[in-house]
Amino acid sequence: MNDVMFKRVALIGIGLIGSSISHAARRAGIVGEIVGSSSTPATRAKAEELGLVTRAYETAAEAVKDADLVILCTPIGVYGKIAREIRPHLKPGAILSDVGSVKASVVRDIAPHVPDGVHFVAGHPIAGTEQSGPEAGFAELFDGRWCILTPEPDTDRMAIAQLESFWRKLGSEVEIMSPEHHDLVLGITSHVPHLIAFNIVNTAAHLERVTDSEVIKFSAGGFRDFTRIAASDPVMWRDVFLNNKDAVLEMLGRFSEDLVVLQRAIRFGDGETLERLFTEARAIRRGVIQAGQDTGAPDFGRRPQSSKDS
Amino acid sequence: MNDVMFKRVALIGIGLIGSSISHAARRAGIVGEIVGSSSTPATRAKAEELGLVTRAYETAAEAVKDADLVILCTPIGVYGKIAREIRPHLKPGAILSDVGSVKASVVRDIAPHVPDGVHFVAGHPIAGTEQSGPEAGFAELFDGRWCILTPEPDTDRMAIAQLESFWRKLGSEVEIMSPEHHDLVLGITSHVPHLIAFNIVNTAAHLERVTDSEVIKFSAGGFRDFTRIAASDPVMWRDVFLNNKDAVLEMLGRFSEDLVVLQRAIRFGDGETLERLFTEARAIRRGVIQAGQDTGAPDFGRRPQSSKDS
Repeated sequence: MNDVMFKRVALIGIGLIGSSISHAARRAGIVGEIVGSSSTPATRAKAEELGLVTRAYETAAEAVKDADLVILCTPIGVYGKIAREIRPHLKPGAILSDVGSVKASVVRDIAPHVPDGVHFVAGHPIAGTEQSGPEAGFAELFDGRWCILTPEPDTDRMAIAQLESFWRKLGSEVEIMSPEHHDLVLGITSHVPHLIAFNIVNTAAHLERVTDSEVIKFSAGGFRDFTRIAASDPVMWRDVFLNNKDAVLEMLGRFSEDLVVLQRAIRFGDGETLERLFTEARAIRRGVIQAGQDTGAPDFGRRPQSSKDS
Repeated sequence: MNDVMFKRVALIGIGLIGSSISHAARRAGIVGEIVGSSSTPATRAKAEELGLVTRAYETAAEAVKDADLVILCTPIGVYGKIAREIRPHLKPGAILSDVGSVKASVVRDIAPHVPDGVHFVAGHPIAGTEQSGPEAGFAELFDGRWCILTPEPDTDRMAIAQLESFWRKLGSEVEIMSPEHHDLVLGITSHVPHLIAFNIVNTAAHLERVTDSEVIKFSAGGFRDFTRIAASDPVMWRDVFLNNKDAVLEMLGRFSEDLVVLQRAIRFGDGETLERLFTEARAIRRGVIQAGQDTGAPDFGRRPQSSKDS
């Protein structure tokens, strides 16, 4: 068994990621008590009922009291407000972290409110599903996935090492980089993919000559994969795009440029260009599987839900 | 057990779809002998070794002899050539079909070469994985998925009914529509999704400030899903885009228009528009799951490959 690393952990927000941290930390046996907070009464009730936290408070200020590790797990749009609210209540020596999908704006919103003696280390586990809420979490969510930490140059090294160790025990690999570089990398590996998934689902829903029912029935040709990503939490994603504007707009500009090249090749029947670009794209998939970031099973290992044959 | 519907079936091309038809038809017990053809010696050897066909011929002309059902399962770019080649060898009364992802151009390429007494019914099973070749097939591929048939107005009704029954026994649902409508529907549910998946993977691979290795490591944030689709067969997809140009360009134009709206909302910090459009997109996912076209399990039921925790 592992030793207890933190006697008391406070999860501010108990959705998919907060609840998964609770499951994974208990599995690892590295935490004493876990408390949490949510402004939503139903979430508080569910989190206590599921044993995710021993106590779910209404306010973050109450939850952080005496906590050795505080992790913000709400949509990033409210981080600034929470940081101001918890400031007077943070325990000296505590580590303050988060799981937000954008890092430069998060550091900007939180860092000015961190009291002396509290160690702020921003973080982002690159893991998730399209589901939300305290019931969506599970202990294996972080296994084999990467967690990126973006400490500032003057952050206490012991605190960084401790948080890194915490994430490793949750099952993650850990990498440290600057908030700005994080936002660029995630812009292309996560934010733009989500944006185009949201977009194509809405494009499909607003066609005059193809019904929604047809879009749904014949979605197994590729579209259904996009609907999964587009089922992610709208408020969380709104905040991501509002807070990683520059990187997303840059990546989106490149995506659109490249798409115009393909569009032109289709218009002029340039099969050579199409085949070459499609062949190049195929190679990256092998890298993803070799790096253990996806299953090599065909179709993600999905199988039809029911067999109609006998 | 089912009765034998076709004494001899010829699969022209024995890749993912051809081999899956063989598996599913044998599972259903509805065919006598299955033969096939491939211009690739390794494919012929593998198809015979796996028992997908009793005999794999080098030419389509040899394979179609005495076949009651002939299904073209090659990339659609060579359909015209195959249709001319097999014309003198088709058995009177035989049904000729295909599995191509585009239908108007396929009907245009094949119909003129179909001899009197042979019944041509174009078809398209909306099913697949990102893998290719004779080893990629499996019997369950069509279970619960849709197969679209696009017969011409004067096609023999008995032949249509027989082919429909064949696909149902392979596990499919069957819908009949015009080739033109098929191409519009698949343009948005399959062709454009593949194009943007190919495209974002290439955009990511050509960034100066983010390495390929970073793109791969941090792909679990959404990008990895696109790499799966972008791993599909380049030649097959080249032919799809060359042959469904009008519908794809129309759908792509709408996709790009809609993307500009999102881009502008991000640029001007219009969170209300973002949240509204993301919320709308979420609803379609529920429809896909209710229609049995995808699993409701989070993240397609994927779980990390290995647990590092003890």
